[in-house]
Amino acid sequence: MTRGRRREHYQWNMDIIGIPGVEAEAELLSAIVAFFSKLGITSSDVGIKISNRKVLQEVLGRSVIPESSFAAVCVIVDKIEKIPRAEVEKELTALGLPVEAVDTILRALTLRSLDDLEELLGSDNEAVVELKQLFELARGYGFEDWLQFDASVVRGLAYYTGTVFEAFDRTGTLRAICGGGRYDKLLSTFGGVDTPACGFGFGDAVIVELLKEKKLLPELNHEVDDIVMPLEEELRPQAAIVAARLRTQGRRVDVVMGNKKMKWAFKHAERLQAKRMVILGSTEWAKGSVRVKDLSSREEKDLPLEEL
Amino acid sequence: MTRGRRREHYQWNMDIIGIPGVEAEAELLSAIVAFFSKLGITSSDVGIKISNRKVLQEVLGRSVIPESSFAAVCVIVDKIEKIPRAEVEKELTALGLPVEAVDTILRALTLRSLDDLEELLGSDNEAVVELKQLFELARGYGFEDWLQFDASVVRGLAYYTGTVFEAFDRTGTLRAICGGGRYDKLLSTFGGVDTPACGFGFGDAVIVELLKEKKLLPELNHEVDDIVMPLEEELRPQAAIVAARLRTQGRRVDVVMGNKKMKWAFKHAERLQAKRMVILGSTEWAKGSVRVKDLSSREEKDLPLEEL
Repeated sequence: MTRGRRREHYQWNMDIIGIPGVEAEAELLSAIVAFFSKLGITSSDVGIKISNRKVLQEVLGRSVIPESSFAAVCVIVDKIEKIPRAEVEKELTALGLPVEAVDTILRALTLRSLDDLEELLGSDNEAVVELKQLFELARGYGFEDWLQFDASVVRGLAYYTGTVFEAFDRTGTLRAICGGGRYDKLLSTFGGVDTPACGFGFGDAVIVELLKEKKLLPELNHEVDDIVMPLEEELRPQAAIVAARLRTQGRRVDVVMGNKKMKWAFKHAERLQAKRMVILGSTEWAKGSVRVKDLSSREEKDLPLEEL
Repeated sequence: MTRGRRREHYQWNMDIIGIPGVEAEAELLSAIVAFFSKLGITSSDVGIKISNRKVLQEVLGRSVIPESSFAAVCVIVDKIEKIPRAEVEKELTALGLPVEAVDTILRALTLRSLDDLEELLGSDNEAVVELKQLFELARGYGFEDWLQFDASVVRGLAYYTGTVFEAFDRTGTLRAICGGGRYDKLLSTFGGVDTPACGFGFGDAVIVELLKEKKLLPELNHEVDDIVMPLEEELRPQAAIVAARLRTQGRRVDVVMGNKKMKWAFKHAERLQAKRMVILGSTEWAKGSVRVKDLSSREEKDLPLEEL
């Protein structure tokens, strides 16, 4: 239980099953960026760090590290921005990794440019190819400015197999806003047949903190079209008729309850920014009419009930 | 954990604070009925049993029963439709109530008409006055056919002080759909100053059972306007441009991913009931155009990107 981490939360999940190519990741990222944009958040507020699990796989493959240590290495490497580098080194060494391997891993993970990655791994490397394709698609969709390659993103969950990403606030004060990636081998761990898949989880906690900070949380106003005001208690059933009639037309109606004065009702209408006041008096009602006051133009007129 | 009762649920609550008169209850009931109507539920599917705690209070007051037993009596009486009458009698007697008092209580609670209630309690009785006002307001709002007076409704919660109500399905197979009432003395039990108040709770479990039974649960379809189909893998970044452009216009766009054939794409479009297919071929794209096929008229034409 810390800021942006609650005991229970809601999470938006989106997954694309059956597509091996990064066009799937591009669609996921496009959805995330569309959501941010709808909330009023821009690419100067939020960025998305992106990498590929195959970077680490390639680096590990070049050293003499058993494939079985891969998941454990990922979990440790994911802490790289949270705990001191020396601590990460110690944990990796404890896994049985030779000193040079630990050094190579940590050097690879500090890479922040795709060109440097290409230089290190070669342009045929799958991670390099996929990341370049993904950036090209992002350019097409028009959200490239949200993305930044960052080899240190591996995500703690050991089941990712390809693209991994994580949205962060650029002021650096909050936890990851959302995260996801490709998990082509997950289904077989549950006894199923492997199917290409990628997806993300987007919790409600961190984004709300961000929206509060940016003052983008919408004000949910109590919106009212008409205030119905009976001038006498005896006219309450008639006020009910009027309110029901207006509501059937889709208008949002507030009936003044309790024994309130006209002055109170007008203040109330002003506070709620209502459009009209509909006043029931016994003289008008006897003629089948109500008094309608337009609260912006201040015009008043008597209207027969059926014209209301 | 039974049908309509889950370990965790969502509940819609609505409360009106500060209004002592039954116009508040009428507004609450009006909201409940409006909600049922929006869901397609009618007054032949659902009824609202209504009574007033003051009925029982009056009946108890006429016998020599201490005020302090009132809450306990309510809890027992609420079970009247769930356990045998003899059992209720036994429990009331165990509270120390004289046999005649138990008999009077049970006779009063079998009342199902306001006229009989008026005859028993007199027309000046507060319960009678309030119930008659409430029915008159319901007539005004136009939902009187949903209501039925039923003296056996007291609600298990001992804090109600006036109107009590409960919506039920008329086939009688489900638990109460929602329930509420007036609780003018509740705030003082928490150390506050008493304020007139009434409200209801409306859980999501029973109403969903009812909607399933009446086949009124909406089908949430995957709605799509345009299917964007690149004819070659090399045109994926261009497909991203097209999809982004259409989405900016508010259209719902599905991009065909993976290496799919046109035949698959058309079947897919049909299944999703999409309106248009937008096809990217390298010849058209070289001229800055895409092919647009209207899926209802079957008309096809090439459109420049900026006219899309």
